[in-house]
Amino acid sequence: MPSNNAAPSRIEELETPCLIVDRAKLLANAQRMKARAKALGVDHRPHLKTIKSVPIAKHLIGESGKATVSTLKEAEEFGRAGIVDLVYAVGISPQKLPRVSALSSEGIDLKIILDSVEAAEAVARHAAESGDPIPVLIEIDVDGHRAGVPLSDTERFLQIARVLHNSKAALSGVLTHAGESYALSAPEALADAAENERSGAVFMAETLREAGLPCPIVSIGSTPTSLSSASMEGITEVRSGVYAFFDLVQAGIGVCAIDDIALSVLTTVIGRRDDKGWVLTDGGWMALSGDRGTRAQEKDQFFGLVCTERGEAYSDLVVARASQEQGVITLRPGATGAIPQFKVGDRLRILPNHACATAAQHQQYYAVDEAGNVTDVWPRFNGW
Amino acid sequence: MPSNNAAPSRIEELETPCLIVDRAKLLANAQRMKARAKALGVDHRPHLKTIKSVPIAKHLIGESGKATVSTLKEAEEFGRAGIVDLVYAVGISPQKLPRVSALSSEGIDLKIILDSVEAAEAVARHAAESGDPIPVLIEIDVDGHRAGVPLSDTERFLQIARVLHNSKAALSGVLTHAGESYALSAPEALADAAENERSGAVFMAETLREAGLPCPIVSIGSTPTSLSSASMEGITEVRSGVYAFFDLVQAGIGVCAIDDIALSVLTTVIGRRDDKGWVLTDGGWMALSGDRGTRAQEKDQFFGLVCTERGEAYSDLVVARASQEQGVITLRPGATGAIPQFKVGDRLRILPNHACATAAQHQQYYAVDEAGNVTDVWPRFNGW
Repeated sequence: MPSNNAAPSRIEELETPCLIVDRAKLLANAQRMKARAKALGVDHRPHLKTIKSVPIAKHLIGESGKATVSTLKEAEEFGRAGIVDLVYAVGISPQKLPRVSALSSEGIDLKIILDSVEAAEAVARHAAESGDPIPVLIEIDVDGHRAGVPLSDTERFLQIARVLHNSKAALSGVLTHAGESYALSAPEALADAAENERSGAVFMAETLREAGLPCPIVSIGSTPTSLSSASMEGITEVRSGVYAFFDLVQAGIGVCAIDDIALSVLTTVIGRRDDKGWVLTDGGWMALSGDRGTRAQEKDQFFGLVCTERGEAYSDLVVARASQEQGVITLRPGATGAIPQFKVGDRLRILPNHACATAAQHQQYYAVDEAGNVTDVWPRFNGW
Repeated sequence: MPSNNAAPSRIEELETPCLIVDRAKLLANAQRMKARAKALGVDHRPHLKTIKSVPIAKHLIGESGKATVSTLKEAEEFGRAGIVDLVYAVGISPQKLPRVSALSSEGIDLKIILDSVEAAEAVARHAAESGDPIPVLIEIDVDGHRAGVPLSDTERFLQIARVLHNSKAALSGVLTHAGESYALSAPEALADAAENERSGAVFMAETLREAGLPCPIVSIGSTPTSLSSASMEGITEVRSGVYAFFDLVQAGIGVCAIDDIALSVLTTVIGRRDDKGWVLTDGGWMALSGDRGTRAQEKDQFFGLVCTERGEAYSDLVVARASQEQGVITLRPGATGAIPQFKVGDRLRILPNHACATAAQHQQYYAVDEAGNVTDVWPRFNGW
């Protein structure tokens, strides 16, 4: 957008492509997760990697004031905005420790995670040299999806814990993430994944305590398991991020409806190829992201599902192809019917496969209300 | 990167993940395309959508001073930096015309493209109302890949041309892009695609001239066809963009070697899962992009090919999986041998599938020389 323009007051005035947040849906999604955590008796620690926006974060943070981040840049931005109880939920590399301690000296309580003796020893050395009692969670692996100490390897787990406990760093608990849940869709399978995540974390927490080691924090979570768990017994906090906006992947998993998705990309029709059944727009992968997260789901949404400018979905219109600044809208394969007679200049909204990836392509969010008023322009940041 | 640090002077000092440009390779790639255009007797109009960086653009622009852009933001940034002969190579939407004319009033010669009577009429109305004689190229379609008037539809083509010619806008020629070339790899097929692109553009240019209409510009191009064409007869200019960095997709097409790729993402090892044959790094899709452009090629490079910190490729190590801020390195499926014993804190460079998409995830480039010195920090921009 040209920086010298006044902020548009109506969705019809926005230049395209741009990123739209349905304000009412965002607030409803935030409220749903807060209520769920409260009902389950745990703190919610929202993952701010999805939004990367201070004004939106203020709507997500619950009474506990806790949050999760995926980069030190997020820790700096949110920490300096007053959100100071943070977990940096990506395995630490030793080179990043000076920036972690710099945050600590600013009064930001940033807990780091690690899963190896090697990293624990590096943190112990840094804590000794810097005098910073860095709080550390041990990452554990409950489903073979990513990083973490497997539940079967309690020997290594306790070795890591003892390195930390015998250092100036502060062994603060365990953390896990049920990565497998993103590949599921049956409610029973999701409930099983949630219970597997819970019981694995509790098992490792008990392993620490039985060895006489502290474990004040037992942190689990993903959007699908957070919304599918029957019990949080033994858990102190749950993390989730994409729930703030939801997206087509989450709808495919079944933890939200298409109509709950709060994020979309506003685009303009720039041409038609009636000979091919194509409508071209100015929304390519630069605006939508190249994420194809629904490719392996039962309903492939290609590069996104098409809606009217006001947000009503066309169930069978998708962005079938995307180049850098052009999207090609077609009927979904196998669908019957015809594409509406869109004209050059008509405007359409595209729901994203993966809200984190789509939001990352933009520098601000335009919040709109149900009447099409632009109520807020929320800046967002990227980088590390 | 923390903004209060002095710029690092060595690659070993850079915080990860970050974007590296091998300066010597960039300059060699730029020189190769300039020499090729000169040998073929056409102007080169580099597409700056790949780089989005004024200091890099200065290395790409040839004697003619021409360039191509994919957004009005690029036109504004590059135009105000003195690169004023521009083509905006995405079909115009009427709402964007006031910004186009604002650039014209700044002395920036921005040519727009369109492919419909509807858009031509909107441009004609705008030219009449604004008094801005906007230069317009008609987009033509030579291979059914994207937008453009098909070669078979000369009636509509001439109708568009007459709407423009009879208006205050300036009919300035034709433009096409051989999108099909990205799916090819045999040299003969690439040469055929290049000749198809050339002959199609020349046919439409001659169609205009035979109807008594002007066609000063005949613009074609893609990186694969630019490097595969035998003749540019009848062509005035060739466009290409990704050649500046090259990438794994271009290497798979066969128009560059892996060793020509000038762009990479520097990452740090954050863990190992020896039970699974995994090395984890801090380079996920946020740093690499989610682009999987080599998926359909003969050699799938997954989310990128792994190199040493100094840039020597491991031919069988790939980033097999990527979450937002974590990459999982494995041996390529079917490869023999073992993964080197990387330690936490070791640093690796990842070559991208698609340079345009990977660069778009970053806010600056770190240019390094062969000795590992950081010679330049080049800012880049995104947005529309």
